[in-house]
Amino acid sequence: MNVHEAIRTRRSIRDYQARPVDPEMLVRLVEAGCWAPSAGNMQNWRFILVRDPSRLRKLRMVSPGMIGVAPAAIVVCEDVEATRKIAGDVEADRCTKMDAALAAYAICLEAHELGLGTCMVGSFHTAAVQKLLKLPKGTVPMLIVAVGYPSGDRKAPQRNLENIYSFEVYSEDG
Amino acid sequence: MNVHEAIRTRRSIRDYQARPVDPEMLVRLVEAGCWAPSAGNMQNWRFILVRDPSRLRKLRMVSPGMIGVAPAAIVVCEDVEATRKIAGDVEADRCTKMDAALAAYAICLEAHELGLGTCMVGSFHTAAVQKLLKLPKGTVPMLIVAVGYPSGDRKAPQRNLENIYSFEVYSEDG
Repeated sequence: MNVHEAIRTRRSIRDYQARPVDPEMLVRLVEAGCWAPSAGNMQNWRFILVRDPSRLRKLRMVSPGMIGVAPAAIVVCEDVEATRKIAGDVEADRCTKMDAALAAYAICLEAHELGLGTCMVGSFHTAAVQKLLKLPKGTVPMLIVAVGYPSGDRKAPQRNLENIYSFEVYSEDG
Repeated sequence: MNVHEAIRTRRSIRDYQARPVDPEMLVRLVEAGCWAPSAGNMQNWRFILVRDPSRLRKLRMVSPGMIGVAPAAIVVCEDVEATRKIAGDVEADRCTKMDAALAAYAICLEAHELGLGTCMVGSFHTAAVQKLLKLPKGTVPMLIVAVGYPSGDRKAPQRNLENIYSFEVYSEDG
């Protein structure tokens, strides 16, 4: 699947088949994630790959954004402490959020090419996820990527190019 | 170019040919950008496409992160005010940073497929960029994507899968 098509046909998937996702597939997704760019090439991600149904259930309980029962999840974490030491507090906040998003998107696009569905989830209880995944202090979950084989087709939400860009300066006319 | 290859061969490009980038190409990149997912599907981006050499020079002057002379730049902005109204202040901060990063990455991958080089730039003076691009209050530049035809080859920085992931819970052993 070429990039042009993948970007335009990726959907956020919330209905999954029960079919499990092989561990090797998840590792391949993580590998894609770590080819995403990161601020100052810091690469301060940490990925937790969850497949255990009981742990997934607990993860869903503290993640209101996790809709549907995905057979796997990749929790994209950042070593915020390490980033702060290099970039300072303010920049670290920005970098870790952006870097996690970039890695998560690489995971979603690679998954889409492999026939897997994903959904990025930003709504979860940080401290509860930290405890559940036994994350050390300073390693913070930034995004959860739910992963599974899609059940049924998902219609594309609308995109409208009008009024979202302009040349040289801001203009309402596009 | 398939997704797998694109993700792994994209580089941050800082040396560009003088050859200009067609306006149509930049619009195609913006179109890719707006197929990126956004928190709650808010799609609160705004893209400013800069090609004017004088404005690009001024942009570089207030953007220490812009290294090399790119013939074009896409400034990825977010309507932070609109996002705050929907998501509240804390969530808006997170969403706008992540959403801008996602759109910027779609732009970089699509550009790579088209033979263009890009570099995401996070280091710039926000207020100065706002003034230069005549952005209204509430519309904030989040990332600059420098765009141009690459000059020469760029070696891949190292990636190391060791110790960046583990199954189920955090573990130093991977």
